[in-house]
Amino acid sequence: MPDSRNAPDGALWSSPLAGACLDRLFLQARTTRAWQERPVAPALLHELYRLMGMGPTSANCQPARIVFVQSAAGKAELLPLLDAGNREQTRLAPVTAVLACDLHFHERLDFLYPHQPQARGWFTGSPASTRDAALRNASLQHGYFIIAARALGLDCGPMGGFDADAVTRRYFPGGRAEVSFLCNLGYAAAAPLRGRLPRLPFDEACAMA
Amino acid sequence: MPDSRNAPDGALWSSPLAGACLDRLFLQARTTRAWQERPVAPALLHELYRLMGMGPTSANCQPARIVFVQSAAGKAELLPLLDAGNREQTRLAPVTAVLACDLHFHERLDFLYPHQPQARGWFTGSPASTRDAALRNASLQHGYFIIAARALGLDCGPMGGFDADAVTRRYFPGGRAEVSFLCNLGYAAAAPLRGRLPRLPFDEACAMA
Repeated sequence: MPDSRNAPDGALWSSPLAGACLDRLFLQARTTRAWQERPVAPALLHELYRLMGMGPTSANCQPARIVFVQSAAGKAELLPLLDAGNREQTRLAPVTAVLACDLHFHERLDFLYPHQPQARGWFTGSPASTRDAALRNASLQHGYFIIAARALGLDCGPMGGFDADAVTRRYFPGGRAEVSFLCNLGYAAAAPLRGRLPRLPFDEACAMA
Repeated sequence: MPDSRNAPDGALWSSPLAGACLDRLFLQARTTRAWQERPVAPALLHELYRLMGMGPTSANCQPARIVFVQSAAGKAELLPLLDAGNREQTRLAPVTAVLACDLHFHERLDFLYPHQPQARGWFTGSPASTRDAALRNASLQHGYFIIAARALGLDCGPMGGFDADAVTRRYFPGGRAEVSFLCNLGYAAAAPLRGRLPRLPFDEACAMA
């Protein structure tokens, strides 16, 4: 960022955030399975969407779609579609986000990328390339979602382990979108049971050229 | 997070980060195309990988792979593979990250998810489902990458607009991985030329249940 966009505390934008922020977003954050009873206000879910929605996507295409399941009736419909081992943590979480990608996202490019009317054609070469773009860009946004939730003080419990076809049919009928994963949201009630799992070393995942 | 994990300034983990942090990570951050000459130290790229690598993936599978192109020779090889309109910004950026997904990530699950030896089978039902999992989880990690870079004070210039097959062949020969997109990294020299593009309203991208 240019120097004119200094942070309010006088630090340059171009220096790292304080260690406590990096801890919360990445280094100390852990997947959560035990939840406090403390609820998550709907306004916080709107703020979460506002933050994560600002992250970049190819031609600003924004294919991520989210259903926030929080009512008792909504939870009762969702729980039977989960693997047994995921039901109790999901029942107790204040909110469960169903995270999906819209396979028809390109229909909105006239609004999202108005200065390049040809952008729709970049994504519609074949159904497979359209789906790839939906999955790639929605998953980027799902990554923003998890970090944005943490930035707002929420803990996240991302999960596979559900009947993906049934969840897609329930929340996105008609084949318009495809569910990728679920993410419980709320406030952790207890530290994780296990230590952090291993990470690949830099030299295995990265190279310099 | 439990209360015992209060941030050092006394604030609870469960309150949002300061507005200046949310601005830098999401609300004021913009895709960058004009770069200062200021270099990016290799140690900062290692720290970037350390942060983004902590984000969650399905069964901790971590399929993201990255080549950081920063040498003059590396740039000279990469530039001809880009669309003409992306070459000058990439030549001037201190680092260009080539962001890919490893299609053989499941071979490392014995190390990454040691307590569940059956995890490999979750991803190897068919080549298509393996690739879906690679693309979905690597793209999540690529989302963490962009936000982690911003958290470290870097600006990001994610780009499509390159010969994807040629870039994949150059950096990941043998079909082991697939390149998703490129991301210039460095320090912005100027504010973006255009205002921010539109975002989908909450009620179009999200629903409550």
